[in-house]
Amino acid sequence: MNFASDNAYGVLPEIWTAIAAADRGMAIAYGNDALTKNLKARFCDLFERDVTVFPVFTGTAANALALACVTPPYGAVLCHRDSHIMTSECGAPEFYSGAKLIGMDSGDGKFTPDAMTEALSGLDGSVHSVQPRAVSISQASELGTVYSVSEIGAISALAHARGLKVHMDGARFANAMAHLKTSPAEATWKCGVDVLSFGATKAGALAAEAVVFFDPKDAAEFEYRRKRGGHLASKMRFVSAQLEALLEKDLWLASGARSNTLATRLADGLKAINSIEIAAPVETNMVFARLSVEKAQKMRAAGAQFHDWFPARDGKVTVRLALAFATPEEDVAKLIELAKS
Amino acid sequence: MNFASDNAYGVLPEIWTAIAAADRGMAIAYGNDALTKNLKARFCDLFERDVTVFPVFTGTAANALALACVTPPYGAVLCHRDSHIMTSECGAPEFYSGAKLIGMDSGDGKFTPDAMTEALSGLDGSVHSVQPRAVSISQASELGTVYSVSEIGAISALAHARGLKVHMDGARFANAMAHLKTSPAEATWKCGVDVLSFGATKAGALAAEAVVFFDPKDAAEFEYRRKRGGHLASKMRFVSAQLEALLEKDLWLASGARSNTLATRLADGLKAINSIEIAAPVETNMVFARLSVEKAQKMRAAGAQFHDWFPARDGKVTVRLALAFATPEEDVAKLIELAKS
Amino acid sequence: MNFASDNAYGVLPEIWTAIAAADRGMAIAYGNDALTKNLKARFCDLFERDVTVFPVFTGTAANALALACVTPPYGAVLCHRDSHIMTSECGAPEFYSGAKLIGMDSGDGKFTPDAMTEALSGLDGSVHSVQPRAVSISQASELGTVYSVSEIGAISALAHARGLKVHMDGARFANAMAHLKTSPAEATWKCGVDVLSFGATKAGALAAEAVVFFDPKDAAEFEYRRKRGGHLASKMRFVSAQLEALLEKDLWLASGARSNTLATRLADGLKAINSIEIAAPVETNMVFARLSVEKAQKMRAAGAQFHDWFPARDGKVTVRLALAFATPEEDVAKLIELAKS
Amino acid sequence: MNFASDNAYGVLPEIWTAIAAADRGMAIAYGNDALTKNLKARFCDLFERDVTVFPVFTGTAANALALACVTPPYGAVLCHRDSHIMTSECGAPEFYSGAKLIGMDSGDGKFTPDAMTEALSGLDGSVHSVQPRAVSISQASELGTVYSVSEIGAISALAHARGLKVHMDGARFANAMAHLKTSPAEATWKCGVDVLSFGATKAGALAAEAVVFFDPKDAAEFEYRRKRGGHLASKMRFVSAQLEALLEKDLWLASGARSNTLATRLADGLKAINSIEIAAPVETNMVFARLSVEKAQKMRAAGAQFHDWFPARDGKVTVRLALAFATPEEDVAKLIELAKS
Repeated sequence: MNFASDNAYGVLPEIWTAIAAADRGMAIAYGNDALTKNLKARFCDLFERDVTVFPVFTGTAANALALACVTPPYGAVLCHRDSHIMTSECGAPEFYSGAKLIGMDSGDGKFTPDAMTEALSGLDGSVHSVQPRAVSISQASELGTVYSVSEIGAISALAHARGLKVHMDGARFANAMAHLKTSPAEATWKCGVDVLSFGATKAGALAAEAVVFFDPKDAAEFEYRRKRGGHLASKMRFVSAQLEALLEKDLWLASGARSNTLATRLADGLKAINSIEIAAPVETNMVFARLSVEKAQKMRAAGAQFHDWFPARDGKVTVRLALAFATPEEDVAKLIELAKS
Repeated sequence: MNFASDNAYGVLPEIWTAIAAADRGMAIAYGNDALTKNLKARFCDLFERDVTVFPVFTGTAANALALACVTPPYGAVLCHRDSHIMTSECGAPEFYSGAKLIGMDSGDGKFTPDAMTEALSGLDGSVHSVQPRAVSISQASELGTVYSVSEIGAISALAHARGLKVHMDGARFANAMAHLKTSPAEATWKCGVDVLSFGATKAGALAAEAVVFFDPKDAAEFEYRRKRGGHLASKMRFVSAQLEALLEKDLWLASGARSNTLATRLADGLKAINSIEIAAPVETNMVFARLSVEKAQKMRAAGAQFHDWFPARDGKVTVRLALAFATPEEDVAKLIELAKS
Repeated sequence: MNFASDNAYGVLPEIWTAIAAADRGMAIAYGNDALTKNLKARFCDLFERDVTVFPVFTGTAANALALACVTPPYGAVLCHRDSHIMTSECGAPEFYSGAKLIGMDSGDGKFTPDAMTEALSGLDGSVHSVQPRAVSISQASELGTVYSVSEIGAISALAHARGLKVHMDGARFANAMAHLKTSPAEATWKCGVDVLSFGATKAGALAAEAVVFFDPKDAAEFEYRRKRGGHLASKMRFVSAQLEALLEKDLWLASGARSNTLATRLADGLKAINSIEIAAPVETNMVFARLSVEKAQKMRAAGAQFHDWFPARDGKVTVRLALAFATPEEDVAKLIELAKS
Repeated sequence: MNFASDNAYGVLPEIWTAIAAADRGMAIAYGNDALTKNLKARFCDLFERDVTVFPVFTGTAANALALACVTPPYGAVLCHRDSHIMTSECGAPEFYSGAKLIGMDSGDGKFTPDAMTEALSGLDGSVHSVQPRAVSISQASELGTVYSVSEIGAISALAHARGLKVHMDGARFANAMAHLKTSPAEATWKCGVDVLSFGATKAGALAAEAVVFFDPKDAAEFEYRRKRGGHLASKMRFVSAQLEALLEKDLWLASGARSNTLATRLADGLKAINSIEIAAPVETNMVFARLSVEKAQKMRAAGAQFHDWFPARDGKVTVRLALAFATPEEDVAKLIELAKS
């Protein structure tokens, strides 16, 4: 039973079908194929406006390249102190952009305009300090929580007033959107997002993410930076096919909804157990549960895989239980049973 | 009829089978899966020694990351002036390593120890100059020619005597090996190669290359640099599966041999035409043909795709005809017919 | 009356004499002159051991180059969250090294081994995280406080146990040493410092700092990185002459002692005023005073220059009063009078 | 007798006077002092238009920072293959800008629009290639030759037509202008130069260069990049004072004229000797002389210092004899005598 990572599962059947279908005859290499060219229209439909879109293989590449397009090397990117770009990309955003990441915190895995104001006050605007140029929102956050449309709007308003671009790390955008129950347009450019890392791998792709620019001017450097980073696929059609399949009939959204539902079911089951506390609002596909170190060990011994998230204290540990598009329903039931014993 | 690129074709059936088979249940993410762990043994077998191997998605990533591991930022990498790393990676090797590339030429797409000696004499060894630290051999070269084992040995001997590491860009390693008819060990570490970009995509993979270090010490930084570059696949097993399938029963070599054979057949056909001249030795899967601009236009009008390689002069142009693992045999025959008319 | 910066004053007379004397006839350029070569011996004497020393023009260059020699691009440098390298060098350490700076805090402008342990626990050691490779101590700190020899020893012991190099930003090393009243050897390599940015400009030089490596192996890349950064002076003798003059008869130490003494005098005068609070221990040449916004305005209106350090709250603000090697004694007296009124 | 480098001599008396005069009382640090603010007006006068000017310590910093302001990381800078930025700055322009330098040659140390056209044809404009964004002219060139105003105009016209900015490396701008006998305006922005590294150190400063932007828009990033590179002097007034003194009564031009005159005198003396050949037009302060290896050895044994420039062949070697603002006239006479014997 794997609850360690939403990357532990494989590939959706619809995506296998699509990439196999892409293997018909020849195609011009490096993204000049028909499938890749068609992607733009699909994403324009999805976001109800003209967008510029670029496929890449990994989420780290998507984030780092997106940020490099909107931040100079002497810039600063404001982000949550526990965000993936801050803690889990081995410095990729800094490598690609040259910029410095400034961590913020405001509880529940999200940051607020107040936290931004405080962070900005620490950058004195002089030449001695890095210059704030972008803010990055993790949607959903590393705690599985989701920024509401109005929260994003408030962050964007402050960002734009201070000359910052707004990036959204949407590695779990599908989960966030399944929770928000509004349109992708409403949850991105309409509330001020300038560029989005649209996650597909966690939603069931083999290896595909898309960088979506809502203003084509911000995209001017992207393709050079992508090539220079070694992220231009020669047989691009196979990456594009994954994205197209995910967009077809909102498969991406269904995938996000499924893992969200399982997470809620799991959380409900665990909540009912006296000795277990749910440590963060369950809004997407991750459950943070606080339980005794002993119980966690027992559950692992019985075959459940998951990560400790916050260090153990007073004999209790907070673990992360990640649900994926393909987590078997019976695994959820089994885990609840294990937790009870 | 596509003779423009050996990336124009799709994926070998054996590779489809292998990646589909990799989609069984869960696997630990980021390369800690069984398939990826097994890769090492497969490459050790292939090269008849202990090696360290890392899968990546693209050839540019393989080259840039490999070079960054063996060159400091103030270093210089000697390479052919027309090599892929020099002309066609938008500066990726410089981005990853910081080093400067120093171009050399000696005819037929290859460089010689003499050219190296001259290039080294231009780097005065003082602090004002970048410091030579690596040499990179394209095997096969951009002209489709192949360095012999003794040529590689001579380059490596000079390189090592001067403290330079030897990198081999093997985007077309399969084609080169099919030509050389010796063992991979003989053609790499036994003649002095320190690190190899083992190409799989051109040989029929979907998106997979392997960086092979023959000395584990040189590999110490690789995994950090790969992650920092955004090239660590979360569902790595699907990249590793491609490489494993290619190594199985020497599929990679058969793939290279097939396109080489077609190239020879095409060159033989074209040679027989009076007005066409073969402009470079045909040793692998590319034919460089010099013909009239008019004839080239006619052939294109009739559906043949290929690139001009050297600029037209005196009404003649040199074109590159690339054969792939999946080029239909009848396309070769048709192209020869077209060229006759 | 300038209390804004210890860079506001000019150059010590002894240094003018020394650089004028250096302008005798010709000298080999780029540091191959006799003055520069002799510097090594002077620094070896000062530190009672074999050291490698490199002059540069600025403190930011000294810090950034020193750190780049001991940290790989995927590395992390632990430092105080308010340190100069963190907040006031526009990302120079990151630019030169590629590494990420991790901020810590433990009060009084200094950090402790406990803070290091906590910071290290946030870097999980996996490939997803930057890899801790160095720690940087500001001596004196941005709050004017000084790490004791045993505090440095404890930090170094933990650092070395975890494979981290120890850098000391000694922009105000003269002030710190004047406070510590021990030998430079005791306060650096004997308690574990690996590389020191030895500050001279704030102590009265025109533009000179020295990077001192206590282990020559760490210095192997320095001269290439310095040249590549544009910091190799062609007429180096004039930089070296400044350093030599400062070392002569411990002029640097006398300079630090003088500004320290003035700071103590100023603090004593201010302490006696009921409405003013001294906000940090006065150990070197800076006095942090908490006083009413109104009084600060009056003092400025009367001609005193100084910076607000912490934002105003409840009508009170904390200002920084910096004393320099050349601050006139009467300015100190005048400022105390101003503060009384 | 030093003919090895025009950096071998010290500092002009007028510059000593100016920097000593700058040491009056306090000044705001980091370039906010009166002297630095006044520099702009002086350079505007000199160039007869509004310019933006930034002092730095070294020529390498000036070039690297200037280029970084006009080239993206995926850009290419066209320059002479023997230019200082290409061969003698240890990769500083690449480090600061990320761009790739593309070498050209057309004889006499200068390049032509034809060479540019050929170089540009090698950059195919696709995403695989670096993107040409700037061209850099060494004025005077490394062979001591000078681009005429019309030559610069032709280069600039082609550059601008192709979207490239024009940088001029004026480490020896004083020598070039003394040769051209036209106004600085005519020889720079009026014929298309966008940004100039104005050299002062070789003309007699202690350590000072100025980056002059003729279009303030190109200068927008400069001060951040300068700080980030560690090149923002805290006691900037002492750098600015050097530049101001050099501009006063065209001291810089007189300095360049003097070394040019000595070079002509030396070349005339050497030309008269049968066994010596002058290998390049003597237009500024450097004489390239071809003579027997034996004679060169004898001259060195007698105390003359100079560098071999091109490797010895057939018993003959080409040496560079550099004249400086302070080379004693008698040294020139002595060297001619030595060469005769």
